Amino acid sequence: MAPRWKGKDAKAKKDAQAEALKEPMSKIVSQLQSSLVQSNTCGFLSGSSVHLAVGAEQLHLLDKACFGSPVRTVEKDKPRFQLSFEEAFYLCYSLKCLKINNDSDDTSPQNSEELWHYMKSKKETFPCFYKAYSHLRMKNWVVRSGAQYGADFVVYCHHPARVHSEYGVLVLSDGEDKDLNGRLRVWSDVHCTTRLLGGVAKILLVLYVNRNGSSNESPLCLANYTIEEHTITRWNPEQCREKMVIHANSDNGTG
Amino acid sequence: MAPRWKGKDAKAKKDAQAEALKEPMSKIVSQLQSSLVQSNTCGFLSGSSVHLAVGAEQLHLLDKACFGSPVRTVEKDKPRFQLSFEEAFYLCYSLKCLKINNDSDDTSPQNSEELWHYMKSKKETFPCFYKAYSHLRMKNWVVRSGAQYGADFVVYCHHPARVHSEYGVLVLSDGEDKDLNGRLRVWSDVHCTTRLLGGVAKILLVLYVNRNGSSNESPLCLANYTIEEHTITRWNPEQCREKMVIHANSDNGTG
Repeated sequence: MAPRWKGKDAKAKKDAQAEALKEPMSKIVSQLQSSLVQSNTCGFLSGSSVHLAVGAEQLHLLDKACFGSPVRTVEKDKPRFQLSFEEAFYLCYSLKCLKINNDSDDTSPQNSEELWHYMKSKKETFPCFYKAYSHLRMKNWVVRSGAQYGADFVVYCHHPARVHSEYGVLVLSDGEDKDLNGRLRVWSDVHCTTRLLGGVAKILLVLYVNRNGSSNESPLCLANYTIEEHTITRWNPEQCREKMVIHANSDNGTG
Repeated sequence: MAPRWKGKDAKAKKDAQAEALKEPMSKIVSQLQSSLVQSNTCGFLSGSSVHLAVGAEQLHLLDKACFGSPVRTVEKDKPRFQLSFEEAFYLCYSLKCLKINNDSDDTSPQNSEELWHYMKSKKETFPCFYKAYSHLRMKNWVVRSGAQYGADFVVYCHHPARVHSEYGVLVLSDGEDKDLNGRLRVWSDVHCTTRLLGGVAKILLVLYVNRNGSSNESPLCLANYTIEEHTITRWNPEQCREKMVIHANSDNGTG
């Protein structure tokens, strides 16, 4: 399946694709990274998310790189951004371009061990979700919440304004993680998920995080985690046999 | 993935494809069906297979339609063919072109109820395997044993002499069938199977037979059985993002 670019007609779709190619996601994320380092941006923990007060440039780049979402506040001159734990930890730990304080009055940033413990305490599945999130982000996929589609994440090959998401992601893990290892255990769950995602033209992508016996006491464990990736698609016996005919016909036509 | 036609070079591959198209499998199976009816062919039960003594024409058509395999015998003038339970029951029950006796001396063919009971008693998984086999055959796929690849069946879009098989099939079923419902329960089994099949360029096709509470006491239950089909493929984040670039480049080149 090729990416489905957004646009009201073929030309608009082609333009969206051309724009995306001119400005690859890796470049946008690098720009965001530099800008956050230069502005010495600090976020702070707020329940199950991280809040940022940012300038116009950072605001623009966060939006272009698809991190977080704006929060409505009364102070119109200082727009606020809200990041999920995975997004915040990625900027902080993997890209090293964001500091995170305990709260908005605090001035001594948390180290990555402290953050890891906090996030884990608020969200038990955080270690495996973070591994999955960072794995996809590092390969330049745009990763957003999949809550709307009954998935953990949805994945785009570029900005969601330009392209539809291709995959709905479910994160699975081995024995210890009872929230994650009970998923897709029975085939009726697989049917439900593929049908639901198929209805919104997405493919089910299963990321199985193998912890290889490593504990999750510190973010260092991430290096030991490995990921197995599978897509699961409904199969149509007639459609698949048509390929044979289509290919043969096009061959007959050209040669 | 398009069918991979067999041949030592591109031209030979194209020829194999053109031949296959000229003579579709549905036509070959119809010819076999008429020929078996006309010759009033009878097979007989022999352990876990069905044996046939056939004439040259039927021999040729069985081979072309990919049913069974020849058996070496001392009588050279009467070649023998051996069919699996699924193949024999398909010719007998679905295509109604084969009679099956209890043994080679018997002259009163078994009815389909009797055959069903015999086959079920020899092979507990027969009802679900037969449902899967006949489902694929009716859609004109060629279905052979997948034992060589750790699968139940392998599936070809035409004769195995012309094309490589595209799928390795595993049959699963709901609760009652303990041999079939314990399969692919853990993700490590999914990894093993997709890797093994991937190594021989096949995709894992899972056929989940839902018995919808129907008993398997008679072949009439087959009408109540439904099938859900999924393919499971390993996913490569880099390769999949390349599609974006490839598609855009070809667009840039042509428009």
